[in-house]
Amino acid sequence: MPTQKKCILNRTALIQAISSKKSFLCVGLDTDINKIPAHLGRNPEGVLAFNKAIIEATHEYAVSYKLNTAFYETLGAEGWHLMEETLKLIPENIFTIADAKRGDIGNTSSMYARAFFERLPFHSITINPYMGSDSVQPFLEFDGKWAILLGLTSNKGAQDFQMQQSGDEEVYKKVIRTSAQWGDASNMMYVVGATKAEYLSEIRQIIPDHFLLVPGVGAQGGSLEEVAKHGANKDCGLLINASRSILYAASDESFAEKAGEEAFRMQQEMRNFC
Amino acid sequence: MPTQKKCILNRTALIQAISSKKSFLCVGLDTDINKIPAHLGRNPEGVLAFNKAIIEATHEYAVSYKLNTAFYETLGAEGWHLMEETLKLIPENIFTIADAKRGDIGNTSSMYARAFFERLPFHSITINPYMGSDSVQPFLEFDGKWAILLGLTSNKGAQDFQMQQSGDEEVYKKVIRTSAQWGDASNMMYVVGATKAEYLSEIRQIIPDHFLLVPGVGAQGGSLEEVAKHGANKDCGLLINASRSILYAASDESFAEKAGEEAFRMQQEMRNFC
Repeated sequence: MPTQKKCILNRTALIQAISSKKSFLCVGLDTDINKIPAHLGRNPEGVLAFNKAIIEATHEYAVSYKLNTAFYETLGAEGWHLMEETLKLIPENIFTIADAKRGDIGNTSSMYARAFFERLPFHSITINPYMGSDSVQPFLEFDGKWAILLGLTSNKGAQDFQMQQSGDEEVYKKVIRTSAQWGDASNMMYVVGATKAEYLSEIRQIIPDHFLLVPGVGAQGGSLEEVAKHGANKDCGLLINASRSILYAASDESFAEKAGEEAFRMQQEMRNFC
Repeated sequence: MPTQKKCILNRTALIQAISSKKSFLCVGLDTDINKIPAHLGRNPEGVLAFNKAIIEATHEYAVSYKLNTAFYETLGAEGWHLMEETLKLIPENIFTIADAKRGDIGNTSSMYARAFFERLPFHSITINPYMGSDSVQPFLEFDGKWAILLGLTSNKGAQDFQMQQSGDEEVYKKVIRTSAQWGDASNMMYVVGATKAEYLSEIRQIIPDHFLLVPGVGAQGGSLEEVAKHGANKDCGLLINASRSILYAASDESFAEKAGEEAFRMQQEMRNFC
């Protein structure tokens, strides 16, 4: 087994990066082999070249990159190799997220933690907390790594269970309130969809200090300003993810340039809030 | 992209296999590279040799194999290659399960479905339903494939959210009742932990026809007889999974023989119930 560098990035370093770049932008590398510009070649080498160009064009304006594992797993073993190679292209002081939505019984979650914290040197992983404390705990046992739990997701299906009542509050609030006891704001974050910006204030009452990873700005329709207004705390406390609006800003040879422009545009909007 | 054979196995074929083998045993290939007999070599080749020997020793007594993706992902790209190679070793009429606990917003779930139904030719995948209908629907769009949703899990953490009240019933019952409308007993199953055998009768009132995938017999302490008593329906309707008790029945060169004996022992217990 190859030994990977430990790859940790703590809360202080993340807050400093946000402050110095005046950005809380996370670029989502949800790279779809069928959507990358044709001239790169729609093969694993093309995907890596695409990621490399996107990272080079956006890293000045971003404090985080998020790799959606599903888009790599459709490529099988080659996809996993691509995640490994992509991580090597990301500058060391930028926060990396495996958007994997994992979670299982304890011994299995331990295996997932090893997969994403050791085998692949991510700083953090997204976790589905539905199976409860012992499904999350193994991720928190890795010193310096982060668990990012689903708080309230941005999709329509969030209505089905997350928004249902349980006792005197919605299920998602119970999930956040309970799970916040399993770790603290130095090793846990929450996913909160931007299409639910009006809920951010209520969530902030439960977890004033935790970072929130916010997808759904851009292609899914959420507003950056609304999210910042309702979701920011004294440390900023936000990572706003944009995937499709940056990756596919153009479909021709100008794709990286246009991606950089879109990332810059978002950073310029963000500088007012951090 | 290599074209895979379609690999479907419908409800009628599964019921016939159970009836003719007098078994509803699922062997969990949660192969831990650190636990396989040392003489095989603790490397990817050793894992594949181990899986091959286990499959050869148990396939007469089993109607299903379940690969826990976490155990393969700790090996990175090689682990994904191992899943591919392992699937090739499983006889065609045996039901295969990717125990992956996936689920995400629609376009991401579509990618996971392609990863596990096309790129890897599994018959089915386990899904965490917490994100709701549009996170599950993409898996149901694959004709002839199966989505196996978390019903009630076997771990302690099931108390945290699944067992909480929501309105007049527990969250897990609401999840089963609601999600059962998204598909039917020909393309959906539910995971129900064997350590909760007393709940099986209540679950059967909500979903009398669906197959239940039952982990937790053996190493986790559940009783096969109790599960059969409370969980079986007119078609049997059960797949009982055993992983560690079969895989690690012995740690020396007799591991496959002992695994076969343990699978045979379980099948002999099962023949009274199907």
